Formats: sequence, structure tokens, C-alpha cells
Amino acid sequence: MILLSTLTFSTTIFAQTWIWYPGDYEIWLGNKMNNRRTERGAFFPPFWKTDSHFVVVEFSKQLNLPQPEEIEIAVEGTFNIKLDGKLQFGMPTRFKLPAGIHSLNIKVWNQATPPTIFVNGKTVKSDRTWRVTYEDKEWIDESGKASDTSATVYLDADCWNFNTKDQRPSLYQLPRKPMEAVTSERKRDGILYDFGRETFGYLVLKQLKGNGTVNVYYGESSEEALDTEHCETLDRVLLSTADSYTFSNSKAFRYIYVVTDKGISVDHVEMDYEYAPVDYRGSFRCNDKEMNRIWEVGAYTMHLTTREFFIDGIKRDRWVWSGDAIQSYLMNYYLFFDSPTVRRTIYLLRGKDPVTSHTNTIMDYTFFWFLSVYDYYLYTGDRHFVSQLYPRMQTMMDYVLGRTNKNGMVEGMTGDWVFVDWADGYLDKRGELSFEQVLLCKSLETMSLCADLAGCAQDAEKYNNLATDLREKLLPAFWNEKKQALVHNRRNGQQSESITRYSNMFSVFFGYLDQSKQQAIKHSVLLNDSILKITTPYMRFYELEALCSMGMQTEVLKEIKAYWGGMLREGATSFWEKYNPEESGTQHLAMYGRPYGKSLCHAWGASPIYLLGKYYLGVKPTKPGYAEYAISPCLGGLEWMEGTVPTPQGDIYVYMDQKKIRVKSPGGKGYLSIPSSKGIKVVEIPAGKEVEFKY
Amino acid sequence: MILLSTLTFSTTIFAQTWIWYPGDYEIWLGNKMNNRRTERGAFFPPFWKTDSHFVVVEFSKQLNLPQPEEIEIAVEGTFNIKLDGKLQFGMPTRFKLPAGIHSLNIKVWNQATPPTIFVNGKTVKSDRTWRVTYEDKEWIDESGKASDTSATVYLDADCWNFNTKDQRPSLYQLPRKPMEAVTSERKRDGILYDFGRETFGYLVLKQLKGNGTVNVYYGESSEEALDTEHCETLDRVLLSTADSYTFSNSKAFRYIYVVTDKGISVDHVEMDYEYAPVDYRGSFRCNDKEMNRIWEVGAYTMHLTTREFFIDGIKRDRWVWSGDAIQSYLMNYYLFFDSPTVRRTIYLLRGKDPVTSHTNTIMDYTFFWFLSVYDYYLYTGDRHFVSQLYPRMQTMMDYVLGRTNKNGMVEGMTGDWVFVDWADGYLDKRGELSFEQVLLCKSLETMSLCADLAGCAQDAEKYNNLATDLREKLLPAFWNEKKQALVHNRRNGQQSESITRYSNMFSVFFGYLDQSKQQAIKHSVLLNDSILKITTPYMRFYELEALCSMGMQTEVLKEIKAYWGGMLREGATSFWEKYNPEESGTQHLAMYGRPYGKSLCHAWGASPIYLLGKYYLGVKPTKPGYAEYAISPCLGGLEWMEGTVPTPQGDIYVYMDQKKIRVKSPGGKGYLSIPSSKGIKVVEIPAGKEVEFKY
Repeated sequence: MILLSTLTFSTTIFAQTWIWYPGDYEIWLGNKMNNRRTERGAFFPPFWKTDSHFVVVEFSKQLNLPQPEEIEIAVEGTFNIKLDGKLQFGMPTRFKLPAGIHSLNIKVWNQATPPTIFVNGKTVKSDRTWRVTYEDKEWIDESGKASDTSATVYLDADCWNFNTKDQRPSLYQLPRKPMEAVTSERKRDGILYDFGRETFGYLVLKQLKGNGTVNVYYGESSEEALDTEHCETLDRVLLSTADSYTFSNSKAFRYIYVVTDKGISVDHVEMDYEYAPVDYRGSFRCNDKEMNRIWEVGAYTMHLTTREFFIDGIKRDRWVWSGDAIQSYLMNYYLFFDSPTVRRTIYLLRGKDPVTSHTNTIMDYTFFWFLSVYDYYLYTGDRHFVSQLYPRMQTMMDYVLGRTNKNGMVEGMTGDWVFVDWADGYLDKRGELSFEQVLLCKSLETMSLCADLAGCAQDAEKYNNLATDLREKLLPAFWNEKKQALVHNRRNGQQSESITRYSNMFSVFFGYLDQSKQQAIKHSVLLNDSILKITTPYMRFYELEALCSMGMQTEVLKEIKAYWGGMLREGATSFWEKYNPEESGTQHLAMYGRPYGKSLCHAWGASPIYLLGKYYLGVKPTKPGYAEYAISPCLGGLEWMEGTVPTPQGDIYVYMDQKKIRVKSPGGKGYLSIPSSKGIKVVEIPAGKEVEFKY
Repeated sequence: MILLSTLTFSTTIFAQTWIWYPGDYEIWLGNKMNNRRTERGAFFPPFWKTDSHFVVVEFSKQLNLPQPEEIEIAVEGTFNIKLDGKLQFGMPTRFKLPAGIHSLNIKVWNQATPPTIFVNGKTVKSDRTWRVTYEDKEWIDESGKASDTSATVYLDADCWNFNTKDQRPSLYQLPRKPMEAVTSERKRDGILYDFGRETFGYLVLKQLKGNGTVNVYYGESSEEALDTEHCETLDRVLLSTADSYTFSNSKAFRYIYVVTDKGISVDHVEMDYEYAPVDYRGSFRCNDKEMNRIWEVGAYTMHLTTREFFIDGIKRDRWVWSGDAIQSYLMNYYLFFDSPTVRRTIYLLRGKDPVTSHTNTIMDYTFFWFLSVYDYYLYTGDRHFVSQLYPRMQTMMDYVLGRTNKNGMVEGMTGDWVFVDWADGYLDKRGELSFEQVLLCKSLETMSLCADLAGCAQDAEKYNNLATDLREKLLPAFWNEKKQALVHNRRNGQQSESITRYSNMFSVFFGYLDQSKQQAIKHSVLLNDSILKITTPYMRFYELEALCSMGMQTEVLKEIKAYWGGMLREGATSFWEKYNPEESGTQHLAMYGRPYGKSLCHAWGASPIYLLGKYYLGVKPTKPGYAEYAISPCLGGLEWMEGTVPTPQGDIYVYMDQKKIRVKSPGGKGYLSIPSSKGIKVVEIPAGKEVEFKY
């Protein structure tokens, strides 16, 4: 494990790179992300606490130099340098280190952007091996001697990929490239431009002549762009003759409706497309063209919503939401395997102490945050990240445990948003929801695992005991023998009559139920049309995962084609926040009581990416970082399929048709499950060469 | 009480003024203050956690307008405006409010400086009646309805005196005025300038000719300025021909030694004196010229160290230290009565949650912070401030109580600085120090009083119980019957043999001892020369206060003349950080193992200001905000004295000679103690006119 994690970071550990206090750059950059939301021209920041970076940070490194060495120093902030505790004059950009054993400290103050440093010498380079603290407690006594710093908490510095002096982290921007509209058409007083599909970036007006106001109405649909009174985003700006004007705030759109004052004309409209520079490492192809299109549109949806962080959707919030993010992470493991963006998003969602509310104010989103940390470890093997994060996991769990009732269960208290899902029917949010208890239980198990990874055996036992206690209460509290299902909630100790899918499906793939109860739930809930249907791709993700985990890939494939294929048939070029096949026309655009409130490019819309990689190509880690993994391919009714799944060691290739399976694996211990008339046969597969198995 | 507190704020409550989240502007400005420290040209920030402002803050106000009204809006930060929950377009500088009942919200994001707003309309004005939060929890449900904000914590907005649109809080600077050196003299390679007395500001070089480096060595003494290798502060800058160059960083000095390269000449040197624009409301004069000079130099010392905050000293740290600050506050109540600077300093010292160390890392300084809050209330009557601060007092006390041992006592743990005093002898810092327990006990009493003020009766009882428990343990734990004194400490349940002055003198004026023990301590400790002497004005403050509280003004006056008079005879133009009469010559300049480490202008040096006002003029509040107060003048060997003491109602004037007392009081219920042959006679004095009493 340790070897793997070293491998994962080898590109950054020994190269000079800009470094900072873990989580601080991430939180600061996240504030820029979350505060880019606008609603009809008004700034719209989040409603939860916005944290910020530590404004004074000390970076330190113990040196042992065979030769004297000059280092180059770049810093974002006001700083000092101490060598062996002695302050050096000024803020030097070069500094000569003597040979021998020395301690080097750089202390930085920066209110506006995170304190960051870049050090480059022959052997002394800023990297993850530097230690950082926000509180060095280096007081001096009357004799001038430095005092007790034994309680000072140090972490390892964090970094990304800013590896040259000029790549100042605070200046980071995603790359852009110009793109043109596909068609334009005069409509009423203005011109409607169509960029051909959902996109994201900065509108550029060219060859402006005259003076006057330019109004721009953005639409994910043409209806939205043309509905100047109700479209969700717009710009209005007073301009005069110029070659070009680029709007400073990015927007999501497929359509643009430009209406100008009489005094001004705009000859040409284009855009700067802004995108995350990710690689499409995961892939999927099969004989079914609709499925291929679903995968492609899912991947594009993921690409648009993968930005500095994994955001919910590109038009409206552009916020980082925990329940949305955990699905992005999981899809990401089957598409980009972009681990830095996962880590950044996890840091941002956690924020800083003190914890004053649930993650994004939502109880269930707190639990998804815990779960996402262990998922990350399982896919990447990055134990170091978990160790550094662990203290923040503890204080987050302290907050949760401080809000449990006498049964050790959570109930919505004032200020808690009990979300569950956007449902087309009544969901009772009062009392003890079985869904929330199941997630809390899994969160406690996660805490126990992570405590262990952080080397805190006592904590691991404590959380394990709490998880076990709660797990043992779940069935007595919520199982209804008559209904053969977990009921939705319990109020004042009384089970409700209501059955919903949520806790039932999670219990299935969390393995909280024995085989007989799983089978019971399959019929009493999952395949029971009288139970309130799920109409968000968000919860369909888990619903279909539950069915896949019970081996129902054939049924799920049909469902994917019906549901995601349904969106495609409605003209989707990216997948939506919500889709109810029973609605029609512009009903599909409305949400939150607003005619265009719905996001038509929402990360959680892309879940086939995950399902196809994990349950059809059938690849998943069984030990952290794919040290060991399973390949259990399943056609689920397809004639053939092939694809790749990214891992820390490289990409795993899988091909399957009705007669044979071919795999190629880059490393780790892989176990292939081959169907046969006698059941499943498991074979270990060699690394580095393609092998074929007939069945 | 409520009436008084309204009176205190009447000037700001109903006028438009820039407002912010309480404590946030103070903490941000404090970071600028604390980070101005340099040591020989190196930036030197504090070693405790530097907190920062909430970067997103929502300001709200419920309106009931008889007429529509247009407001002018200025904001530091990116902002939005919501009227009745509806977002408005853009970031308007003027906005029309309709008549009727409405809710107005302004939400601001600012990473670099605190979110602040200024609103000015005919009746709608930003002031302390606005509510603020960093977390409004205004989520919407699927229907677009705003959800449960019932757990959102609001505070009242805070402000200072930025009452016009252009006075942006983030641009605040203390005023400056040019001042000239008194003498200049060529010394070795440069010129030594003498500004005549200790001063503070920005050096200005005039009529520069040529090119080259200018080296400036600052000294509180001529020895320091001339000792270019060891002076504490210096500047080195490459300059060329110019009319004038002003250094950007302020310095403290009396002497400047300027040494230039051959290539450059500086024709003239002056300075921009920087100062707090305070009124000298307190005053003291008597027949003894030395005492008058002591008061004047004390007042000047206080003026130099009263800046944006009450700092320790002007040369070296310029940091805000809690133990230093509480004395500044007390002196301030007898000199400037500058309450905003007290509040700012209290906010800055507290910082933000989570609490990760003692105040300034020092255990005793945490306790002085608690004590200072109630002092502030007693002198000002500002209950509102205590209520707003109370949650931060609670979390600070939670930190303390989380670090008590099985006896409910505090012992230094790793990372705790147990300071007590800079002593010229060994002070054991291990185990349970009686000094720390006495301060903890008083802190718990303070918490109980403040909980009551904040309307938290249950808390008040809890803290009172804790205080009572601890107080009952003090004598059994520390009283040594043989030595007739509290011992210094106890280790593993064993009293040490050591007696120091600290806990004994605090127990006296905290009233923790009965009369017989007080008298015993007077002889066994306070007047006992074999007990380790105090050589800082810091602890002499309390030592002399203890003696004064026992009626020993005559002895204390002699002591003041000896000690503070001693500094004057050594040439002091401001009072020092430490003074040991047994030292001589340049020994007086050294500290912390550095030849000029000692600060020669240290706030805690000015304590006669407090002693003369409280125990000679004899004025002190007996009910909060001087609603009731005592005047108990005491000549202490003087022939006559007169002076003024500021109060929220105005200044109290007191004159006393050996035959009569004259007082004039502006309001409140004043009780004058008049000495007579039959003992003390107390009379209530009328407000608004001078009255004379013969005795």
C-alpha cells in the first residue's frame, strides 16, 4: 500500500512545486468557484458558512546538505526566512544555505489569497515533504531561548501541479479555446445563436459599432434564451465601438439570444469554451448505438461539470454539493481518474472547524462526505490523504454525534436540511428516517476504517462499536415483516406505514441485509411499481446499483435505455438534473417553481458511466488502489462490449462477447470472473499482456 | 442598565455608518497591527493562530416604511441585494425601497478585507440595529420555497466611526503629522539624529542626491542606534535622487543613525509622527513635581502604545498581548476612556473558533482576557457588547475547562506558556500554580456574571458552582500556616516551599482572604524583602494595587517615586518594559539575551495613571457604567492634588488638600468618602455643580 501511494505521488514528491497548507488553497479556490453563481444578473453565494485559508502559515524543512546550496524562493504573501531559528534580512528571492544539518523555516502572511511558497535549489525543493502549521507556538523566554513547541500540530504541505516559479497558484485558471455558434437566426428584436450542444464559457462579442446596451439571454433550451423575462442567467452591459468584448463571468448555455439597443450593433458572436484539461482514460463501446450515445453524452456531461471542482451543474448553482460530488467521484474513477480534483472537492466540502452545520446544510450530504473519503482511498490507495484529513473527519463526526437522539439515531433538528431526493410525491422528513440511519451507520464504519488508516486504533474501535450498535438497531426499528421492507421513518418510536426506495436500496448494496431480505426487497420495493418512483438520475444511480449488485444487469440495461435514452429522445445533449418520463415538452425545463429552473447539464445525470464500468465491464478494486481487483464482466443483454477502466497502475482493457472475454491489465493482482455452465470461474490474470478466455 | 447602554451608543445607533460582522473588522485590522513587527529588517508575525474575517456575510434589516425611499449603497466586496427574498439585478449603488413592511438583505463576499456595507436613505441607514450572519441557511425546496432558517445565528452588526460613504473601513489609517529632529550630530560614518524623546512614525528622507544604499538604524537609546550590528530595527533601501522618500513601515525610536553609500546624500531627515486621535480626559496634578512628571510620562507612554489597538510596546512586538492589554484598558479608563479601542482589542485577542491555544499561547493571559470583559462592563455599562461576545467567552472557557486536572485546577500542558512574569529569579512553572488557580477562579466568577448579563441563568449557575468549588480549594491547597502565605505551587499534591508575591497579592484585591490572612500576607509577603522582588512594572501594577486596596497609599506613593522616578532619573522619556533599580548603565537596555532587547516604551510601564486615578483621586464605578460610583480621595502624603476621571456621563473632577475636598460630577449617583476624626463619612454628591467639603 505504501509503495503504491508513493508511486501515485512520485511525480510531485521530488520535484519543486508550489506548496500550501492542506485544504487551504482548495477552500480558497472553491470560494471562487461557488461564488461564480449568478441568478438573472445577481451575485448568488452559498447559504452555508464560507470558510477561508489560514492567513499566516509556517513552512519548515529539516536539511542535511553535503554542499552549500543556493535556493530560489518565490512566495505569495509577505514572508520571512529563518535558518536555525535566526531571522534573515528582508524577503530574499535567493538564499544561500550552508552545508550541514539545518532547519529552514519560511513564514508567510497573506489575507487575500492562500500563503504559498516555491523553493528551488539543487536538492532543496518545496514539495510534500515540507511541514506546515498555522500556529508554531515558538515563543521565547526571558533569555531569548525558544520554548515548548511540542504541542504544535504539523501537517505535510500540499500541492497540485504548479511546478514552475511563474505558475502562481492564485492565478490559476482553467484553459479556454474559442468556439463558434452553429447557427444564428433573427428572432423578434434580436438574434438567437445556437452552439449546437450544451456548452460552457465566456461569450465574446466582436466588431461592436456605436454605443448602447447589449442584453444577452442565455438558455440551455431555445425556449429559455428567448424568454427574456424568465431565463435563469443574463448579462446586460453598456458598450461602445470595439473590436471585441469578452464577458468576465462564465455561463452555461446552448443558445444565446442577443438583443441590442438601436445605437449599437454586434457583428459577430462567439465564445471562449472553458474546460478541465482531463484525459478520457475510461471508455465504453458496444453493439448498441443508443448505449454508446448514452455513454458519450454521460462523459460529456461529466466533462462539463468537472471544473476546478466537481460541481452539480453548470448553469445554475455551479456549487460543490456533497451528494452530487460523491457520484462525480465514482464516475470519475471510471472516466478521468482525476484524483487531485477529488481531493480538492473533499477539502472544500469539509471546510474548516468549527463545524456549524451539516455539509451544505444537508444531513445526508454529511454522510456522503464520509463515504466519499473511503471510496477515494479504495480507488486510489492514497492513505496519506486520509491521514491528513482524519482530524477533520473526527470533528465532523463529533458534530454529527452531538446531534443524535437517545437511540443514537439522527433526526432533523432546526437548521438541518433533511434532503433525501427531489421526489414527485410526499417524503416525510420528520423523526428517524431509515435512510439517514443507514447512511450514518455506513459513515461510522467509514470512520472506523479511516481511524485505522490514520493509526488511531482506539478511535477505530470506538467508531466500530458505534456502527455495530446502530446496525443492530436498524431492523428492529424499521423492518416491517408484513410489508417485507424497511419503512421510511419512525416517529416517537412508532413505525410509519410509508415505504420508500431509499433505505431499502442502500441496505442492499451496503450488505446490511441477509439474502432472504434482499430478495424480499427486490420484489416488495425495487421492482414494485406502486412504490413512489424515483425521478432524479441522482437516486436512480443507487437504485440501479442495488439492482446490479443483485445481478440484474439485463433489467438495468433496459432501464438505462428507457430513462437516459428517453432524455436523448427529448433532444438532450447533456444529462439532466431530473427527468420524469411522464412529463412532456417544456415541463421538462421547469423546476423549483421556475419555468427554466432545471439544470440540463447535471453531473448526477451521468451515472451510466459508473454503472457500465463497474457492473458491465465489471472492474472494481478489491484492495485499495487496485492492488487487487476484480473483473466480472457482464453483457446484460448486449452482443459485445469493450472498454477501458483507469487505475493508478494504468488502464484495464476489457472485451466481451457471447463467447469470449479478452482483458489486458497494467499491474496489480487481477481476478477475472468467467461465466461457465458450472457457475463462475475465477482466474488470476497476468499483468501487461492481453489474454483471451473462451467461455 | 439598558438605558445607560442605549445612551452610550446613541451617537452611532441612529446614524448611517459602515457596519460589519462583530469582531471581523477588528481581527482583520489586528492582523495588520500584529504583522507590522520587524526584527532587523525581517518580517515577524505572531506565533499563535492568526484568525481572519468571515468572507461571506449577510446583513439584514426589517423595514416598515410609511413612504417609498431611495437608499444609497456602498459595499466593500461583491454583493447582492434581496428585497423580500427576491434577488435584484447587479450591484446597484442606489436602490428604491417601496413603502410598507419589507425585508432587505445585502450579502457580501470579500476574501481580502472584511465584508462591510454602508446604507444611507432618509430613514433606512446601516447601523447597529442591522442583523448579520455568516450562514443564513436559506435553502429552497423543490417548489422554490425558502426553508428552515430557525437555527441561523444572528448577531447585531458592529461599527466604529466610519460615518460617510467614502470612509471605507479597509482604508483606515491613524493620523500623522510631520515632526523634526531636535539635534543631529556626525558620528563615525553617519549622522545621529535625536528626536528629543521616544516617538513613533515613518522616517522621511529629504532632498536625496545621487544613487546608493541608505541604511537607517533606529534606537530607543543612542547606544542602540549607533550599534548597527545589534539594534533591534533597521531599514536598508536602494534610492536615487528624489525630493523625498518616506519609509512604508513605522518604527519606534528616539534616535536615528543614518549611514549612506558614498554615491548618495540625504540633506534632511524628519518623520511623520503617527498617533491615535484620543482625548486626554483624565488628568492629575499635585504639589510634587516628580509625581506630575511620572503622570505625564505615563500618559505619553499610554498614548504611544494606544494605536489601532492597545499594544505592548512600540519598538519590538507591537503585538496585542492580553496581560498587557488588560492593564492598558484599566489605565485607559482613567485617561482616554476610549471604549472602541478596548472592544477592538478584546475581539482581536479572542480571535475565532476553534480555540487551539491559550490567548497569545499564555495560560494566565487567557484568564486576564476573561477578567477584562467584566472590567469593561463595569466601567462602561455596555451590556450589549458582553451579550454579543458571550458565545466566544463560552468556547474559550470550554477550552480551559477541557484542560483542568482531576482537582479542577490548571497545570501547564504541552504547548501552554505559563508566564506569570519576567522575574529576576527562578519561577517554577510546573504543577498547580496558586497564581493560575486564583486567576482561573476569578475567570469563572466573571463567566458567571457575564452569563447572567447575556441572559443565560443556567450557565451563570454552572460557572458560579465551578468558581465556588475552586475557591474553596485554594486555601487547603496553597495556604502555608507556618509561612502565613500562599505557596507558589503544588506538585503531585505536595505544597512547594516557595513563596512568591503573585497569588498572594491577587488574593488580596480579589477579596479571597479574610482580614487576618490579608494582614498576615502584608507582612509575610508584600512588605517582606526576602521574597523575590518584582522587577516589571507589569506585576508592580498589581503589587501596588494590593497595597493601595489595604489603604497603604503613603507607602505606595514612596514606591512610585522610587521606582518610576528611578526610570526618569535614568533618562526615560517613556516607561519601560522592565526596570531593576539594582542594574545600571546599558544593563537597563538589555533583555532576552539581546543588548537592546528591552522595550523602553511599554504600556504596562504606565500604571501610575491607574493607581493615581483609582486610589488617590479615588474614583471608581460601583455599579456598571458609573451608574453609581465612589470617590474616596487619599493624599497619601501629598499636600494637594487635583484631577479628572472620565466616565460615560462626563468627567469627574476631584481636588483635595489637607483641609478640604472639592468635587464636581457630571451625573450618576456619586458617593464621596470624607475622612474625619471619627472615621470615614460618606456623602452623596449632587450632579453638575462643584461642591466643597472641609474636613
